[in-house]
Parts: sequence; C-alpha cells; structure tokens
Amino acid sequence: MEVYFDNSATTRCSSRVQEIVQRTMDADYGNPSSMHKKGVEAEACVKEAAAAIAKTLKVSAKEIYFTSGGTESNNLAILGTAFANRRAGNRILTTQVEHASVLQAMKFLETQGFEVVYLPVDKHGLLLLDALEEAMDARTIIVSVMQVNNEIGTVQPIEQAAAIVKQKNPQAVFHVDAVQSYGKMQIRPKKMQVDLLSVSGHKIHGPKGVGFLYIRDKTKITPLSFGGGQQSGMRSGTHNVPGIAGLGQAAYEAYEDFDQKIDYLYRLRRLFLTRIAQIPDITVHGFTDEDERQQSAPHIVSIAPAGVRSEVLLHALEEHHIYISAGSACSSNKPSVSGTLQAIHAMPSLLDATVRFSFSIHNKEDEIDYAVKKMEELLPKLRRYHYH
Amino acid sequence: MEVYFDNSATTRCSSRVQEIVQRTMDADYGNPSSMHKKGVEAEACVKEAAAAIAKTLKVSAKEIYFTSGGTESNNLAILGTAFANRRAGNRILTTQVEHASVLQAMKFLETQGFEVVYLPVDKHGLLLLDALEEAMDARTIIVSVMQVNNEIGTVQPIEQAAAIVKQKNPQAVFHVDAVQSYGKMQIRPKKMQVDLLSVSGHKIHGPKGVGFLYIRDKTKITPLSFGGGQQSGMRSGTHNVPGIAGLGQAAYEAYEDFDQKIDYLYRLRRLFLTRIAQIPDITVHGFTDEDERQQSAPHIVSIAPAGVRSEVLLHALEEHHIYISAGSACSSNKPSVSGTLQAIHAMPSLLDATVRFSFSIHNKEDEIDYAVKKMEELLPKLRRYHYH
Repeated sequence: MEVYFDNSATTRCSSRVQEIVQRTMDADYGNPSSMHKKGVEAEACVKEAAAAIAKTLKVSAKEIYFTSGGTESNNLAILGTAFANRRAGNRILTTQVEHASVLQAMKFLETQGFEVVYLPVDKHGLLLLDALEEAMDARTIIVSVMQVNNEIGTVQPIEQAAAIVKQKNPQAVFHVDAVQSYGKMQIRPKKMQVDLLSVSGHKIHGPKGVGFLYIRDKTKITPLSFGGGQQSGMRSGTHNVPGIAGLGQAAYEAYEDFDQKIDYLYRLRRLFLTRIAQIPDITVHGFTDEDERQQSAPHIVSIAPAGVRSEVLLHALEEHHIYISAGSACSSNKPSVSGTLQAIHAMPSLLDATVRFSFSIHNKEDEIDYAVKKMEELLPKLRRYHYH
Repeated sequence: MEVYFDNSATTRCSSRVQEIVQRTMDADYGNPSSMHKKGVEAEACVKEAAAAIAKTLKVSAKEIYFTSGGTESNNLAILGTAFANRRAGNRILTTQVEHASVLQAMKFLETQGFEVVYLPVDKHGLLLLDALEEAMDARTIIVSVMQVNNEIGTVQPIEQAAAIVKQKNPQAVFHVDAVQSYGKMQIRPKKMQVDLLSVSGHKIHGPKGVGFLYIRDKTKITPLSFGGGQQSGMRSGTHNVPGIAGLGQAAYEAYEDFDQKIDYLYRLRRLFLTRIAQIPDITVHGFTDEDERQQSAPHIVSIAPAGVRSEVLLHALEEHHIYISAGSACSSNKPSVSGTLQAIHAMPSLLDATVRFSFSIHNKEDEIDYAVKKMEELLPKLRRYHYH
C-alpha cells in the first residue's frame, strides 16, 4: 500500500486537470495575445478559467490575476502594495506564523525602510485580535494574515481581523494567504473585507507553476515585473494557458460537492486523531476537539511523538511507503526550526520531533489505519534507538 | 489545410514533452522540497532538466535557474543586476529593438534613478557596435542585447558586443535575451562572455509558464521575490516540476540533429522568400540574401505588402486557416507601432502593413506553397479594397 499524506506540500493533479493541460499543450496551443483563431481560442481558455475561479469566491473574473504560484502571489500582494502605498505610511502588520513567502517578503521590506510588526498568536496558533487592534494605526498600509496555517492547520479569524483593520484604517490593504485554505473553506472576499487573496494551483489537485492573486477592484497595487502588458499590465508574460486552464478546472472541482468533501476530510482527520490518541506520548499541535471544527482545517494534523526526531520517523514510515512531512516542507529541504512551533511556545523537545500529516479526498480510511498501525510498531523501536 | 506560421508567438508542445508533463502531473507529482521518496523523485526530474539544458549551452547545471518564462527571466536579469550593482554605477545600455519585457523593465529602472541608453541599429536592425563602444563606460553596470529580434529575425553580433563591453568594464554584466535564438543557434555563454541568458519554454515546443535564466557563476544579482529559498534563494517557490521537466526535454530535442533542423528551417525560409519575391510590392524587413545566413534567424520573416493593413491580411489568411502575426504579437493584443520597425527607419506607410511569418520544423514546404498562393490571390483584392 502506498499512502500519500503530504497533500499540504503538493497534490496529484486530478484526471480532468491532466486532460485539460494535455489538450492545451496540443490542440489549443495558441498564444492568447495572437489575433488569429488559435489565439482567440487560447484566450477563451484563460477567460473560462478566470470565470470559474471568480465564481468560487463570488468576485468578478476581472479581479483574478494569474501568477506562477503561491510564492509569486504573496510577493506581488505584499511588495506590490507596499511600494504602491508608501506615501500613505510605512507600517505593515503580519503574524509570527506566516509562510516563508510572506515572512521573507516582509524581511525584504524591512531592508527598504518599512516597519514590520509580527503579531503574536496563542498556544493554538490563533492570532491575538487584541494585539492586532493595538498595533493597527492610521499609518499602517498593509495587514497580511494567512487563513490556514500550513504547519498546524489552525484557522485564523480572518473576518474579525479584517473588521478591526478596516475600522482603524479603511485605506489599509488586507491580504490573506489562502494557499492552504482555498478549496477547504468557503471564502467570500467581498463579505470578509479581504482586498488581496493568494492561491496556489498544486495544493488543490491543480498544476504546479500556476496560482492566482485576487485583487479587489480599485486596490492600490503596482506590478513587480514588466513586459507585454498582459493581465492589465499587472502581470506581463505570455499566459500559461495549460496551467491556467488546469487551475480553473481544479478550482471548479474543489468546490463541487464541497460539503461532502469537507465532511469526508474531517472524518479522516477525526479518525486519525482518535487512533493516534491510543499511542503514548504524542502531542498534537493546534486544535483537536470535534467542537472546534471551525478553528482547524480539515486536512492538516501536526503531531510530535516525544523522543523521536521527525526525520527519523519520516524515513521509517517512508520504508513502508507512507509519505509525510517533517515541519512544513514548503521550504527548500533545509531543516530549520519552525517559526510556527516557536510562536505557539511548543516545548523545545518537541520542535524537532514534529511531523505533519496532510490529507486529500483521495485518501482512504484504511490508509489511516495502516499508517497508525505502522507508527504503533515503529515508535517504540525508534524511541529505544533515540535514547541509547 | 491548417498552416501555423506563428511559431515565434508560441509553439505546439512536442509529443515527448506532453508525455513528460503528463507523467509528472500524475505519477511523479511530489514536491522537490519534500524529504521522502516522492520528493526525491521530483527533485531528480528537476536536476535532470537542468543538466540537459546546461549541456546545450556547455555551462554548469548550477547556473540554470528556472523561472515562469521569458518575461520573468528578462526582469530578473535586468532588475536583479541593477539593484545588486547600484553602488558600482547607475548607467545601463540596451538597444532600441528589444522585446517589451526588456524595454519596460528599463523604463521602470529609469523611474528608480537609473540612466538607460537605447542604442541605435542600422536599417537591417543590427546593433551599431560603434555606438555601443562610445556609450560604454566604467559606470555602466549592465548591457542587455537580444540575440534574435522577435519581429524581423536579425541576429545581433553578441560576441563582438560582449567583447566591447568587457574590454571597457570587466565588471559590467552582459545580458542576452535569447528567447528567439535558443534552439535556433548554437550558444556558448562562456566563450561569448555572456553573464546572463534568458530562455522561454513555449518558443521551443516546450510548455508555457516556464523558462530559465542562465546566471554565470559569481554574477552579482539579487532575487526579486522571496520565500522558501528554493534555487539557492534566487527564485523561491515550489518547483514547477512538469514545466521544468518538459522544458528540459524540449531543450534536448531542440539541439538533437541540430544542423539538419536548422538547414531545414533555412530551406523553408529561402523557399518563402523566393516565392513571395514573385508578388509585386512586398518589402522584406531585415536580411534576405542567402549569403547573409549568419545574420538572420532561420525561422522569422517579416514582410510588408504595400497598401494592405496587417490586420486585414492576417484575418484574410485566417479564413483559409493560415495563422500569422501582425507585428510581434508578443504583447497583449493592443496594436501599437513597432519600436523595431521605427528603429530600422521602415517607411511610415509600411509600419501598419507589416506581418510576421515564423516557421517551425513541423511546417512543410507545401504549406509555404499554399500560403503564398493564397496571398497571391488575396493581395490584389485587399489592395483594391484598401484604396477605394
């Protein structure tokens, strides 16, 4: 049995996505900027994808800008609004638990004279709204908060955070990194007062190398690269038609029979949590109770079996064709201490013992049985190894 | 018969490229940053592609950085070196006939306090080396010259230009936009003293949404986006494995049986030029003589049939399933006067009569016969229409 429990790192493309990518590489291979029929057909693929995505968010298709993925979306959102709004202020707020593509963009802005405040979270990883309210002022030009934490699955109170931001400064731009939440939650940027929203294709059974940034109409933002003027000049370059068409299909599928899919994912998560509760000395990070369902994403569980280094467990499970992640695995191989685990004040001994299981709708209940059983067998041996 | 003569706008993916993209979306779908086997397999795809590409240029695989395409490659090259070398000077040289992704990046740098000199070309579009020599000084930090002009196919004297640049200032970074030349010419960055070289996948029967920038070891350049630190921190973001693997395959194929392919393309070009010479009042931009083979790319012909607007001819040919381009078609639909045609001092009446035919190895001689025959039939009618 092969068990892929690393769906927050990346997912397999759905069959229909694969078909569409193939078709747009072969038959509909035109350049949307070409004036002839081949170009018009390719342009139609792009428009169709934008419309499909816009529908899932109840926004306008013109507010969807295609990028090369989550990292570019986050960088465009943060750097693009920082540079465009510099005259209004130089203060930026974010949290201590963001993805590297947000945090490193913030670090860069600090070198450019911006002041960045990294807001604290509680022991479950929840943004402290009081801290946001206190830090937010009229000079604050951007606030960036992720919706679902990629390491521990905690869901931030986006709508309340946005309300605080807009109440203190209606001009401030509110950005949400939705890379781990899009397709797992219903998102309504207009209602939630979200100005910018980042999404990645390959986290939702869509292609790698493509994503989008929702940019609310009239948001002040400047492009970061320049060229042929595609996408209203916000993101030049020949459209990645296969990627975009595949992303549109993946977005459609993610919200098709949405409630059943999400129920199913929560069921997998619940089963996993129930089963590992039988194994001694495993700490679960973030929320675990059933009644806290709204506060944890359905697909991510972060656990720390005491006394076993995460990489050791990862490779031991790999021997049995079970694939998980040590830490977030979103950054390039280098093992480094997780900012999220530090921010939630995880016990130091658990920092390098933490592994992430992340599910998709293609996982089965017997895969969870199998993985937990293997852990039950392996952990005593690995713990013995560790202490001797 | 369907005749696609717009291969400089984009190409159809080769069958083998399609297969590899499909495989990496389905079986080998891991994230190269994941530590388990699925990640390692995906990472191997990326390394294999880098090695295949490096071999075509006789450079090291570590000098290949994957991007989302030609526009990102050009922006990273130009903005990344400008910001990294600001202390050494603020002067930048380029030509009047560059692609929009170079010219618009330059325009942006002008707003950031850089001085940009746009060097003139002769009537064939050739960079005037005397002008380069005169403009080049010790304060010049970057020189950016395209290798093959995307509108008229003229090949720039890259090696001589680099020699002049390096002789005047060995620290200056020499960038080549090779989007239209890679796969059509043998390129040796080390021998040619090229520090940075931009390439796009979809111009060489590879995927859209992927390209690379060759960055010579020790070149001073700073990343433009930030995140998980992939690609030595130069270009963060989950690797676009299917795109990269497809690009590697496309690069391999482009240089497989290279001489035969290039001979074939020149034969198509020669046949086309010979045949259209029979039609009255057609001006050919750039070089036309057989003995000037080294000065014109094998796949691009730019012509202006007097008295017929380019869009009218484009749509008339489209009716017969012949697809060409009006102007360069690399920018977003908007018809605008070509900078290249102005720089070569094309007659004003020809500016909006110019169309581009661009060939690939999949085109056949009878397609050229068919297209020229249709033009012979159509042009007298279209000209009559134009004048009445």
